[in-house]
Amino acid sequence: MSMIVEILKQRIRQEGRNLGGGILKVDSFLNHQVDATLMMLVGKEIARRMGRLGATKVLTAEISGIAPALMTAWALDVPVVYARKHKPVTMPERVYVQQAPSHTKGGGVELMVSPEFLGPGDQVLIVDDFLATGRTISALVGLVRQSGATLVGIGAVIEKRFEGGRAGLEGLGVPIEALVVVERMEGDEIVFAEE
Amino acid sequence: MSMIVEILKQRIRQEGRNLGGGILKVDSFLNHQVDATLMMLVGKEIARRMGRLGATKVLTAEISGIAPALMTAWALDVPVVYARKHKPVTMPERVYVQQAPSHTKGGGVELMVSPEFLGPGDQVLIVDDFLATGRTISALVGLVRQSGATLVGIGAVIEKRFEGGRAGLEGLGVPIEALVVVERMEGDEIVFAEE
Repeated sequence: MSMIVEILKQRIRQEGRNLGGGILKVDSFLNHQVDATLMMLVGKEIARRMGRLGATKVLTAEISGIAPALMTAWALDVPVVYARKHKPVTMPERVYVQQAPSHTKGGGVELMVSPEFLGPGDQVLIVDDFLATGRTISALVGLVRQSGATLVGIGAVIEKRFEGGRAGLEGLGVPIEALVVVERMEGDEIVFAEE
Repeated sequence: MSMIVEILKQRIRQEGRNLGGGILKVDSFLNHQVDATLMMLVGKEIARRMGRLGATKVLTAEISGIAPALMTAWALDVPVVYARKHKPVTMPERVYVQQAPSHTKGGGVELMVSPEFLGPGDQVLIVDDFLATGRTISALVGLVRQSGATLVGIGAVIEKRFEGGRAGLEGLGVPIEALVVVERMEGDEIVFAEE
């Protein structure tokens, strides 16, 4: 097991909090405060595992996916595109759009990517902070399809296996890697899957 | 002048678009698609210029500030906190809040930081993608003050000098650095300030 996996588990054990309802709070190093050094190791490890796939672009969703995706993109030496939830004035009229769940409001949110930055020539590695229900990642897969690009793999920092998202993504036939897999959470105890 | 400044100017000249109303579109390397290698150079350059200030934390605003702020934090070996615009379920009830302008909807948006990650012990370097009217950065300064932390400097990738934000921030008495300063935009021509 690589060093970063052990470090991540330790940080999750020490700083992660089970808020109930399947929610794992890791705001101290991944979601609100970001440990930049840790994130660099995360990016390098995802790149090490998935570099052979020949990605020409990393795709993620704003907001929490940006840090691990940027570091992965840096390690792979390719650009990263982050799908937007609100259309900025700089975005063209016609964009690719997919529905995704909202983590803040409940209900849904739109994820948008400009055709300027995703197209048939791209080999896309999707990277997100969590693989949970898989619905955000499925929305990103939908954007890849709309653009005519090719999906080559899916990477996540933390998988919450008890939310079952991986099963729905395996039919895509691309490698799926999560650096750390949480099997279940019981009170204060966070139980990792056996390697 | 350092290499990264020349590279940034070249990218802005080649890929930047003046959309009118003071809006400079740089979606191909900074705001929607991010050039990770470029962003690493940006982070190192901000760190080189401001490392002497002894920052213990980098503070930015989601979304577009995250990439340059993360790379700066990496280069300084400190954590980065990104102020949130929507309260995730993991955020505590009581947070620091400041009003900031919205880039997508017009009107305003709230910027929030959890007291868990910003407090009296922190020396804060604010890093954002743009220094324009200065209102987003002023909101971040407000969050630093609310938390009891100390502001030590302000860094931005691109300053739009014609929007005048710097003047309002100079009274803070901390160093302000922008890697590239746009003096004005005339049609397709983007004019940089003299060094």
